[in-house]
Amino acid sequence: MPTQSSKILETFANPHWQRDYTIHIRIPEFTCLCPKTGQPDFATLFLDYVPDKLCLELKALKNYIWSYRNEGTFHETVTNQILTDLVQACPPRFMRLRAEFNVRGGIYTTIVVEHQAPGWIPPMPVHLPS
Amino acid sequence: MPTQSSKILETFANPHWQRDYTIHIRIPEFTCLCPKTGQPDFATLFLDYVPDKLCLELKALKNYIWSYRNEGTFHETVTNQILTDLVQACPPRFMRLRAEFNVRGGIYTTIVVEHQAPGWIPPMPVHLPS
Amino acid sequence: MPTQSSKILETFANPHWQRDYTIHIRIPEFTCLCPKTGQPDFATLFLDYVPDKLCLELKALKNYIWSYRNEGTFHETVTNQILTDLVQACPPRFMRLRAEFNVRGGIYTTIVVEHQAPGWIPPMPVHLPS
Amino acid sequence: MPTQSSKILETFANPHWQRDYTIHIRIPEFTCLCPKTGQPDFATLFLDYVPDKLCLELKALKNYIWSYRNEGTFHETVTNQILTDLVQACPPRFMRLRAEFNVRGGIYTTIVVEHQAPGWIPPMPVHLPS
Amino acid sequence: MPTQSSKILETFANPHWQRDYTIHIRIPEFTCLCPKTGQPDFATLFLDYVPDKLCLELKALKNYIWSYRNEGTFHETVTNQILTDLVQACPPRFMRLRAEFNVRGGIYTTIVVEHQAPGWIPPMPVHLPS
Amino acid sequence: MPTQSSKILETFANPHWQRDYTIHIRIPEFTCLCPKTGQPDFATLFLDYVPDKLCLELKALKNYIWSYRNEGTFHETVTNQILTDLVQACPPRFMRLRAEFNVRGGIYTTIVVEHQAPGWIPPMPVHLPS
Amino acid sequence: MPTQSSKILETFANPHWQRDYTIHIRIPEFTCLCPKTGQPDFATLFLDYVPDKLCLELKALKNYIWSYRNEGTFHETVTNQILTDLVQACPPRFMRLRAEFNVRGGIYTTIVVEHQAPGWIPPMPVHLPS
Amino acid sequence: MPTQSSKILETFANPHWQRDYTIHIRIPEFTCLCPKTGQPDFATLFLDYVPDKLCLELKALKNYIWSYRNEGTFHETVTNQILTDLVQACPPRFMRLRAEFNVRGGIYTTIVVEHQAPGWIPPMPVHLPS
Amino acid sequence: MPTQSSKILETFANPHWQRDYTIHIRIPEFTCLCPKTGQPDFATLFLDYVPDKLCLELKALKNYIWSYRNEGTFHETVTNQILTDLVQACPPRFMRLRAEFNVRGGIYTTIVVEHQAPGWIPPMPVHLPS
Amino acid sequence: MPTQSSKILETFANPHWQRDYTIHIRIPEFTCLCPKTGQPDFATLFLDYVPDKLCLELKALKNYIWSYRNEGTFHETVTNQILTDLVQACPPRFMRLRAEFNVRGGIYTTIVVEHQAPGWIPPMPVHLPS
Ligand SMILES: [Ca+2]
Ligand SMILES: [Ca+2]
Ligand SMILES: [Ca+2]
Ligand SMILES: [Ca+2]
Ligand SMILES: [Ca+2]
Ligand SMILES: [Ca+2]
Ligand SMILES: [Ca+2]
Ligand SMILES: [Ca+2]
Ligand SMILES: [Ca+2]
Ligand SMILES: [Ca+2]
Ligand SMILES: [Ca+2]
Ligand SMILES: [Ca+2]
Ligand SMILES: [Ca+2]
Ligand SMILES: [Ca+2]
Ligand SMILES: [Ca+2]
Ligand SMILES: [Ca+2]
Repeated sequence: MPTQSSKILETFANPHWQRDYTIHIRIPEFTCLCPKTGQPDFATLFLDYVPDKLCLELKALKNYIWSYRNEGTFHETVTNQILTDLVQACPPRFMRLRAEFNVRGGIYTTIVVEHQAPGWIPPMPVHLPS
Repeated sequence: MPTQSSKILETFANPHWQRDYTIHIRIPEFTCLCPKTGQPDFATLFLDYVPDKLCLELKALKNYIWSYRNEGTFHETVTNQILTDLVQACPPRFMRLRAEFNVRGGIYTTIVVEHQAPGWIPPMPVHLPS
Repeated sequence: MPTQSSKILETFANPHWQRDYTIHIRIPEFTCLCPKTGQPDFATLFLDYVPDKLCLELKALKNYIWSYRNEGTFHETVTNQILTDLVQACPPRFMRLRAEFNVRGGIYTTIVVEHQAPGWIPPMPVHLPS
Repeated sequence: MPTQSSKILETFANPHWQRDYTIHIRIPEFTCLCPKTGQPDFATLFLDYVPDKLCLELKALKNYIWSYRNEGTFHETVTNQILTDLVQACPPRFMRLRAEFNVRGGIYTTIVVEHQAPGWIPPMPVHLPS
Repeated sequence: MPTQSSKILETFANPHWQRDYTIHIRIPEFTCLCPKTGQPDFATLFLDYVPDKLCLELKALKNYIWSYRNEGTFHETVTNQILTDLVQACPPRFMRLRAEFNVRGGIYTTIVVEHQAPGWIPPMPVHLPS
Repeated sequence: MPTQSSKILETFANPHWQRDYTIHIRIPEFTCLCPKTGQPDFATLFLDYVPDKLCLELKALKNYIWSYRNEGTFHETVTNQILTDLVQACPPRFMRLRAEFNVRGGIYTTIVVEHQAPGWIPPMPVHLPS
Repeated sequence: MPTQSSKILETFANPHWQRDYTIHIRIPEFTCLCPKTGQPDFATLFLDYVPDKLCLELKALKNYIWSYRNEGTFHETVTNQILTDLVQACPPRFMRLRAEFNVRGGIYTTIVVEHQAPGWIPPMPVHLPS
Repeated sequence: MPTQSSKILETFANPHWQRDYTIHIRIPEFTCLCPKTGQPDFATLFLDYVPDKLCLELKALKNYIWSYRNEGTFHETVTNQILTDLVQACPPRFMRLRAEFNVRGGIYTTIVVEHQAPGWIPPMPVHLPS
Repeated sequence: MPTQSSKILETFANPHWQRDYTIHIRIPEFTCLCPKTGQPDFATLFLDYVPDKLCLELKALKNYIWSYRNEGTFHETVTNQILTDLVQACPPRFMRLRAEFNVRGGIYTTIVVEHQAPGWIPPMPVHLPS
Repeated sequence: MPTQSSKILETFANPHWQRDYTIHIRIPEFTCLCPKTGQPDFATLFLDYVPDKLCLELKALKNYIWSYRNEGTFHETVTNQILTDLVQACPPRFMRLRAEFNVRGGIYTTIVVEHQAPGWIPPMPVHLPS
């Protein structure tokens, strides 16, 4: 039986919750509909997060992304909405979502939204010479 | 009122039908569904043709491409089907369709299909030194 | 009826004004005239901003950019002028405009101008290891 | 006094008319108007030719290209028209024009048109190993 | 239950057997063992074929490729062997296999093998100007 | 006699332990098995460290990496595990491991984990103009 | 009458002197002579500055750059000399010159020199997430 | 004592004159003057030839190329002139010169000229699958 | 005991001598000495061949390439010499050697040499649409 | 008479010692021997420094680099040794050496070492918007 698009996100226990570490995810296959014209919009999503107690399960994440396929929504709204949903599902220490939309009318648009858990302090970055 | 996805292709009279010349079209926003799993498939389409009496109208072409958004179809089938439809709409002297699908299971697949009008002889290519 | 070039910028309410988030816009199709020679100049514009209460509407932005097509103006002047107009239209928390002009006389020129709202404090950037 | 856009092409005597040799020209700054919507279109032109008795003068060519800036014309029409004009100005042994238009509606279009002088035989290309 | 590596290739009926058309497949995840040292070897496989009555099923192909994971075999041998197996599974009109191995000892090696069905005549390629 | 995959890491005395300096290592040939499906996973590993008294011996490191070839393990787990093992083998002043996994289900995943020795202070980076 | 190479730099009034903004200039056509061998040296110059009351006029800048064509001078000397001349001509708030010389004897050399006006404080950079 | 620019080309005996083989030379440092404006022009030269009894000596070739540094000459003229000089110096079986000039007025120009010795038949190219 | 540089090439029996197939080898680590100045020269070698009864053993090939490390030899001579040696060691149906030397004096040189066995007819290349 | 490899580094007086400025040098032609196997190792060196009273003379630097051609030495050792020698020759305000070694056994290694003169304070970097 085929899998289905779904708004339900799933998680699993972070196997190394003692450490701050980073998970980077790239999803080039996001598509939704323009609420004004009804035509398809396409974007690549970049998700970066520092997990706390939970990690996002990738197969459910894929189905969640798929659930926007036939929804009409603006660029700014959908990017903020996805971040809000992901933060609620696996309350992370930090999360950033970048949505890089395909060109429309000769204009390229990208939206970047972030969430930081109250009280969480980002690690001082270590810059090794390179 | 929003435009709609549509199977209807439109054409206009080739303004320079006396000459063999070439129209190259790239469409990075093709998506359909996998007939086995129901999940979305994504591809970039490359269409090259030598028009005869008619040229393809781009806005209708976009709506035609859009009409596959919620259809389940295999890679080999849909590529052949699109070529067949385009050839019927604007019987060209020559047409080639290349569908470059996104990776699935670690495998990248591309399908290339061609049509040549009976009696049409391809021009001898002129290779200038470069 | 065709749309028209226009100096009028339009806006819409920022759907997530509670958050500082970023909108990146790239416009590769800017052209104006050189005020000395009357010849066309070409540039790519990069606009980055943190919206406050209002976001820029993209279709009106496109028509605004188009309005420079037959105006004579210097690189430094036009880049500053566009920033000033955009800031006035949607007073943002922060805005940066980068204008990358095409080569002239073997020289490539790029102008970068910024605006920061009084009292707005840029977020401390979070640098995740990558 | 500023130079002006102009439909007049100028030529000079080919300094080496005894030989078949090739001139490649790339013009990234072509712009005209869409005859349906009145909005600007942008393209890069690639011109390759084998001169006969005359060569195209580049400054006049630039002004000629500039003359389309405020004309409404379709992709297929303008590409064929430019080739026809250039062929008439400097009747060449061979000429090819490629017009690579910017993306519109998620679709990238390129038109390629050629002219070959009657009786001129393209040189057998010499392929050196590389 | 997990899938398994397997030497069994599966096929399905070519939906457009009347036409010569081309299927390109890229598999960046091939690995086997060096028969001399027992150490892992890695390669990217490029498979191009013109199907006849049968097409290769991709999931079974993936499992077949996987079956070499713990086999010791030389570059020249394994490339020829895979081609032979694929040809036997879906006797194609034409098939080419390119195996691009990772660098060893400062040397990069690539093997290319082809099969052409007796009596099949490759189509005259149509070179459109570009 | 062939070498073997092995969990044993080897080290040698850091020849310049007086200085903080950096060793960057890239390993494009990591592969393990997915614990859910049993199928192969592939990744490129990027290891950066500041050695203390010991440096990692590369041949043993290669055999250690090789030892995961037939183990089933999740992305987050294996990346943390490798870092832990390497830190134990050559207790470094600082170490970062980045595991860039191949695409699965249209999603690209990368995990980044760091270790910093207690009391070690990263050098103030010197940024020369460039 | 042809223009001439010249040591005279020209300036014009900065149209937006109230703001700190940035002008980036790239000049790929710098050439001078090696004072030891007399042979030509080639470099690409990258000039970045924050204007104060004056901006550099580009045509005079081009002629100034051209004036080095037949001068013998070392890499370190000429880069410092050009910066000194440009700073004197249009005393800027900040200026950086990078000279990227072509390979000689298998070695690639780049020189970077900066000037900062006394009392001028560089703006705190605003790093938007991207 | 410094070397000097020079019109004198030098040659040496082809060590393998029995074979047709190919020498490819790229010279990114060609510069001359525009005969109309006196301003510098820049180009990259690509020279490919099949030597007969003589090969071109590279140091003398460099000095020959250098000799155009202060000469005023058109693109078409200088490319043909250099080919003629090189052919006279080392009469080759085949020679091709490609001069890729830097952009001027938004237009990029490249000239390609060839010479083939009477009676010399180009080798049938061997195309190995790749 | 360390391996040694060596002029001795080794071979093994071609496991698929019935077929014409292609072996591509890239060796980025070739170095010899300039016979005039004694200074090091560096090149990347590209070797393509169709084996007959024998294939080249890679480890011995590496040692053979290494044997030129302290020899003084001209570009044209050494490229022809290596081809001659390799042809003698494993008489192939076809072999091509390309030596791409590092820039010297601003000039990039590449030599390409081929050998074809008497009586061997290159396969008609099959060009699949792509 | 040919030049020779040499351990002797030469310097010249820094023509602008009053300023902190930066010299970047890239040397793609470093080679030494592996002390274990005797086989050649290859690397690209990146040297960045802020000169004090002395600058490194490039021809002597090239001969110094050349002197490692037949020495056996480990990656970590040779990188530290070269930095130490260069620092001693021209005591700089700051120096960084990056040695990027060619792949061995599927592993890419890079070593980065720095020296900072006691009491020298790195300049606060000026980040212009770009
Ligand atoms: Ca969009
Ligand atoms: Ca995209
Ligand atoms: Ca794609
Ligand atoms: Ca697919
Ligand atoms: Ca541009
Ligand atoms: Ca374009
Ligand atoms: Ca290998
Ligand atoms: Ca690979
Ligand atoms: Ca994966
Ligand atoms: Ca230089
Ligand atoms: Ca030019
Ligand atoms: Ca150039
Ligand atoms: Ca090289
Ligand atoms: Ca050389
Ligand atoms: Ca190494
Ligand atoms: Ca390298």
